[in-house]
Amino acid sequence: MNILAIESSAKAASVALCRDGALIAQYYQASGLTHSRTLLKMAEDMLTDLELTLRDVDAVAVARGPGSFTGIRIGVAAAKGLCWGGDLPCAGVSTLEAMAWQGLGHTDCVICPAMDARRGQIYNAKFRFEGETLQRLADDRAISLEELVEEAKKEKISYFFVGDGARMCYNRFLAEGLPARLAPAPLLLQTAWGVAMAAMGQPLQPGDDLTPNYLRLSQAERERLERLKSQA
Amino acid sequence: MNILAIESSAKAASVALCRDGALIAQYYQASGLTHSRTLLKMAEDMLTDLELTLRDVDAVAVARGPGSFTGIRIGVAAAKGLCWGGDLPCAGVSTLEAMAWQGLGHTDCVICPAMDARRGQIYNAKFRFEGETLQRLADDRAISLEELVEEAKKEKISYFFVGDGARMCYNRFLAEGLPARLAPAPLLLQTAWGVAMAAMGQPLQPGDDLTPNYLRLSQAERERLERLKSQA
Repeated sequence: MNILAIESSAKAASVALCRDGALIAQYYQASGLTHSRTLLKMAEDMLTDLELTLRDVDAVAVARGPGSFTGIRIGVAAAKGLCWGGDLPCAGVSTLEAMAWQGLGHTDCVICPAMDARRGQIYNAKFRFEGETLQRLADDRAISLEELVEEAKKEKISYFFVGDGARMCYNRFLAEGLPARLAPAPLLLQTAWGVAMAAMGQPLQPGDDLTPNYLRLSQAERERLERLKSQA
Repeated sequence: MNILAIESSAKAASVALCRDGALIAQYYQASGLTHSRTLLKMAEDMLTDLELTLRDVDAVAVARGPGSFTGIRIGVAAAKGLCWGGDLPCAGVSTLEAMAWQGLGHTDCVICPAMDARRGQIYNAKFRFEGETLQRLADDRAISLEELVEEAKKEKISYFFVGDGARMCYNRFLAEGLPARLAPAPLLLQTAWGVAMAAMGQPLQPGDDLTPNYLRLSQAERERLERLKSQA
């Protein structure tokens, strides 16, 4: 079974082809170019270079959030388009769960994907590996770095950080004397490989049913609600 | 400084662009297609998708062995061609040292890149990270798995394995009750990112001076020497 996986939730864009759980190819960019220009071109180049077409793909997997609103929209829209065009089912996975797979092998750590959510917060979640099985310890959430440090002080276990908020968390943990590890560059930001791994345990759905998961309201929605409230 | 890195020492082929030590893009394939068809096409696609040309590249880095004789020749020849065409300097690095970078973060382990060398042997070397500085503990060598196990029994420290011989070593270590970790899929086989990291501490040279390092004689050379010996 060939899964075409897509990741564009934050600064990095990547596509991967996984066959029966094995990584056949991955194409990754963190260049600053907009995903709306790069993402589908990367998928096309990768399939062509593998001497494959969309007909050889059995399912599409995509990170549906949380993350950059624009990034998630581009990824989800690209996945919907590929599913429609190729008559394919898809799996939409949590961006944070996909990132957690990048900690595979660190069985003695809490795996903590961390995305800079601005406004003093980080999107994060906590996981642990039992061998090669990923177990969730905390829901996707937006909390402050202070709150995360307080949790870790009680747990006395090393944290493995991944994501664009990882280095900030890692430096803070070291400054607090808390044990921590940082993902190496190819696993530091989001990867499509992580998306494919997270999709494996999940039922497939029609592309039509795929929805983004923003975790919090967009600025436009927040402002609209505040306006309505002040008018009430 | 933009480094274009190339890896084709074994089954995987990959190219990466690193800028001042940061990973900007990596394109990786372990599809079974021959590197002579895929490698330069991948480099071209990656540069084009990054809106760059060879003129934007400052140096080429390549893994010069040990590894598959054909794979190394393709990588070294491609690097020489790019250096000639683009008037660029290059760095040729040890395949095993480049692989060791894929263990970055595992400061509490011996980093052991392991390539299946057939004939009951594995090409391997041993390294350790002091923070983000890689230190070599053993030269590139071809030894048996038994010899590696005996060494590890004396050391009482976890091994981190990477390479196409990694799973074999990992399984054997676990069977022997020795602590071991296995690199996750995107870091399991050789990567161009590792090549770029290994190249960073190294002086650049003209492409003309780049030579492969096979570590042992090719089958043709072995047979020729045996024939000459029997004629003597």
